[in-house]
Amino acid sequence: MEVYLDNNATTIVDPIVYEEMRPFFCEKYGNPNSLHRFGAGTHPKMMEALDYLYSGINASDDDDIIIVSNATESINTVIKGVWIDQILNGNKNHIITSEVEHPAVTATCKFLESQGVSVTYLPVNENGVLEAHTVKDFIRDDTALVSIMWANNETGKLFPIKEIGEICKEAGVLFHSDATQAIGKVPVDVQEANIDFMSFSAHKFHGPKGVGALYIKKGIKITPLLHGGEQMGGKRAGTVDVASMVGMGFAMKLAVENLEFEATEVKRLRDKLEAAILEIPETVVIGGKENRTPNTTLISIRGVEGESMLWDLNQNGVGASTGSACASEDLEANPVMNAFGSDSELAHTGVRFSLSRFNTEEQIDYAIDVIKKAVTRLRNISSSYAYAPSSHKCGL
Amino acid sequence: MEVYLDNNATTIVDPIVYEEMRPFFCEKYGNPNSLHRFGAGTHPKMMEALDYLYSGINASDDDDIIIVSNATESINTVIKGVWIDQILNGNKNHIITSEVEHPAVTATCKFLESQGVSVTYLPVNENGVLEAHTVKDFIRDDTALVSIMWANNETGKLFPIKEIGEICKEAGVLFHSDATQAIGKVPVDVQEANIDFMSFSAHKFHGPKGVGALYIKKGIKITPLLHGGEQMGGKRAGTVDVASMVGMGFAMKLAVENLEFEATEVKRLRDKLEAAILEIPETVVIGGKENRTPNTTLISIRGVEGESMLWDLNQNGVGASTGSACASEDLEANPVMNAFGSDSELAHTGVRFSLSRFNTEEQIDYAIDVIKKAVTRLRNISSSYAYAPSSHKCGL
Repeated sequence: MEVYLDNNATTIVDPIVYEEMRPFFCEKYGNPNSLHRFGAGTHPKMMEALDYLYSGINASDDDDIIIVSNATESINTVIKGVWIDQILNGNKNHIITSEVEHPAVTATCKFLESQGVSVTYLPVNENGVLEAHTVKDFIRDDTALVSIMWANNETGKLFPIKEIGEICKEAGVLFHSDATQAIGKVPVDVQEANIDFMSFSAHKFHGPKGVGALYIKKGIKITPLLHGGEQMGGKRAGTVDVASMVGMGFAMKLAVENLEFEATEVKRLRDKLEAAILEIPETVVIGGKENRTPNTTLISIRGVEGESMLWDLNQNGVGASTGSACASEDLEANPVMNAFGSDSELAHTGVRFSLSRFNTEEQIDYAIDVIKKAVTRLRNISSSYAYAPSSHKCGL
Repeated sequence: MEVYLDNNATTIVDPIVYEEMRPFFCEKYGNPNSLHRFGAGTHPKMMEALDYLYSGINASDDDDIIIVSNATESINTVIKGVWIDQILNGNKNHIITSEVEHPAVTATCKFLESQGVSVTYLPVNENGVLEAHTVKDFIRDDTALVSIMWANNETGKLFPIKEIGEICKEAGVLFHSDATQAIGKVPVDVQEANIDFMSFSAHKFHGPKGVGALYIKKGIKITPLLHGGEQMGGKRAGTVDVASMVGMGFAMKLAVENLEFEATEVKRLRDKLEAAILEIPETVVIGGKENRTPNTTLISIRGVEGESMLWDLNQNGVGASTGSACASEDLEANPVMNAFGSDSELAHTGVRFSLSRFNTEEQIDYAIDVIKKAVTRLRNISSSYAYAPSSHKCGL
C-alpha cells in the first residue's frame, strides 16, 4: 500500500479540478487577451474560477486577486514591491516578520537586509506560536510592512492573524500574511483579519502546481514584480495560464466546501494517527496539540533520527516529511525546529505527518502499523536510542 | 470551419506533449524536492525534459537552464537582476534595447528609468530590423546589459543576434535575447550566438502556458527575482511545476524535430496565404518578405481597419491578430507598428497571420476565401476605402 502523508509539501490534484483544467490544453487553448473566439472562449471558466477565489477568502469585489505562479512569487511581489515603493523610493526602512516563516519570506528578507533594510525576526513562544503583542512592541515609525504566516507548515500552528491585523491597522502599517498552509484547512477571511496582502499556492489544496494568488486590498498600490503586458490590470504581466487559473478556482471551491470535512474527518484521522504514535514511549507532539490546522502533526520520537525514519517509512510505502533542518533536499524544512533549539535532540527527531481529504481510514491503519514497526527497528539498531549521536547531524 | 492563425500569441498544446504531462496531476503528484517515492517518482521525466531543453538550444552542460513561469518572468529576472547587481550595487547605469521589443522588456526598462537608470532604445530600419552596428555605436563604459529580441512577434523579422553577441562579447557587456518568437521556428544556438541570458515561453511552441525558461551561461551570477527555497540551485525559488516543466521539455523536443517541417511546409502555407492576400490590390507585407520566421506575415490592407478585419474574420471562424497598437486587449500589440509611424495608415491596417504545424492546406484555402470576402465587404462599406478616417483611431 502507498500512503501519502506529506500534504503540507504538495497535494494530489483533485480529479474534479483536473477535469475542469483538461479542455484548456488542446481545445480551448486561445490567449485570453486575444480578441477572437479562441481567446474569448477561455473567459467564462476564468471568470467562474475568479468568483470562487473571491468568495473563498471573502475578498470584496473592489479588492484585487492577482494570479501568479505560486506563493513564493506572491510573497516576493509584496516584500520587494514594498521595498521599492516605501524604502528605495520612500522614507521607511524596516520590516517585521517571524523567525518561523517559509523561506520565501525569510530569504527575501535576508536579501533586503543585504540592501540595507532593517528586518526584525520575531521569536515564537514555547508552543511555536507568535504572540500578537510582540508585533506591537517592535513596530517603529519607519516600519513599512509586517509579514506573518497564517499557519506554520511544520507544526500546523495557527497564528493570531486577526489580532496582528488590528495592530497593523491601528499603527498604519501594511500587513501581509502567507496563508499557504491555511487555505483549505481553516476558514480564511481577509476582511475579518484586516489583511492588506495575502499569498497562497493552489498545489497545497488539491489544485495544480505552478499557480498561486496574491490578494491586494482595494486602494493599495504596489510596484509589480513582473513588468510587461497589461494582464491582471497591469499588476502581473505574462500570458495567463488559463488551465492553472481555472484549476486553482475550482480547487478553492472544493476546499471551501470541504472545510467541515477537514475539521471533522481529516482531523479525526490525524488524531487517530497521532494518538497511536503517542502510545510509543518517549514521543511528543512538538508545539503541543492546541490551535493547529486539523491535518498536521509534528512528532518527535526520541532516539530516532527523522531522516532514518523517513527512509524506513518510504521503504514501506509511506511518504512523510522531516521537521529537521537537516533535510537538504526538503525545501519545506522549517526554521520552526531551530526555534525549539537547533542543537537539541528534538531538532533531529521530528517527523511531520500531514493528511488530506484523500486519506482513508485503511491508509491510516496501515501507516500506524508501518510507523510502529519502524520505530522498533530503528531503536533496536541504535546502541542507545536515548542518545542521538552528534555524528548524525545531517552529515555535516 | 475554425482556423487558428494566431500562433504568435499562443499555440495549441501538442497532444503528444499533453500526454506526457497528464500523469503529473493526479498520479505522480509528489513534490520533486521531497525525499520519498512520491517526490522521487517525478525525477526521471523531469531530467528527460531538461535534456531536451539543453539540446534544443545547444546549451553546454555547465550552463544553467532555470524553469520559470513564462518569458516575462525570465526577462524581468535578467533585467532586474542586472539592475540590482550592476547598477544598485555596482558602477554601471545604462541598458541598451530596441524600440520594438515585447512589453516585458520595454515596460521593465521603463521601470528602471523611473529608478534613474539610463536606457537607450535603438531604432529599427525601414524593414523593421535592428542593425547590429547600432548596438556597437551606443555601448558606453557604464553599459550593463544589451537586450535584443531574436525574432519580432509582429513581423517575424529575425534580428542579427550572432553579430550582436559578438559585439557584446568584445565590449564585455552582458547580452540577453528574448527568443520567445524564435524557438520552434528557426534554429536557436546559444553558444554560436554568444548569448549570456536567453528567455522563452513554452506556450509559443505547443507547450503549456505558465512555464518558460531562463538560460544563463556558465559562470554568470545574477540575483534571483524569486527568493525562497533552494529550487533551481537557488536561482528561482518555488515548488517546481512538474507537469509544465515536463510539457516544455517535450514541446522543445518536438519543436526541434519539426524545424525542417516549419521551414518547408509551414512556410509553404504561409507563403500561399500571403500570396493570395497580395493578389488583392493595395496590400503590402509590412517590413518586407526577407529574413523572417517561416510562420508569420504582417500585412497591411489599405482602407481596412485592422480591428474591423479581425472582427469579420472572427465571425467566420478565423482567428488572427492586429498589428495595430490600438488593440487594447491584445497585449501582444507591438511597437513595431509605431516604428513604421504610429499615425500612418499602416499602423491601423496591419493584420498578423501566424501559422503553426497544426494548420492544414484546407484551413488555409478556407482562410483565403474568408479574408478576400472580408476585404470586399469592408472596403464596400467604407465610403472611400482609400481613406481611413481619423475617427477610427482605436476609438480614442
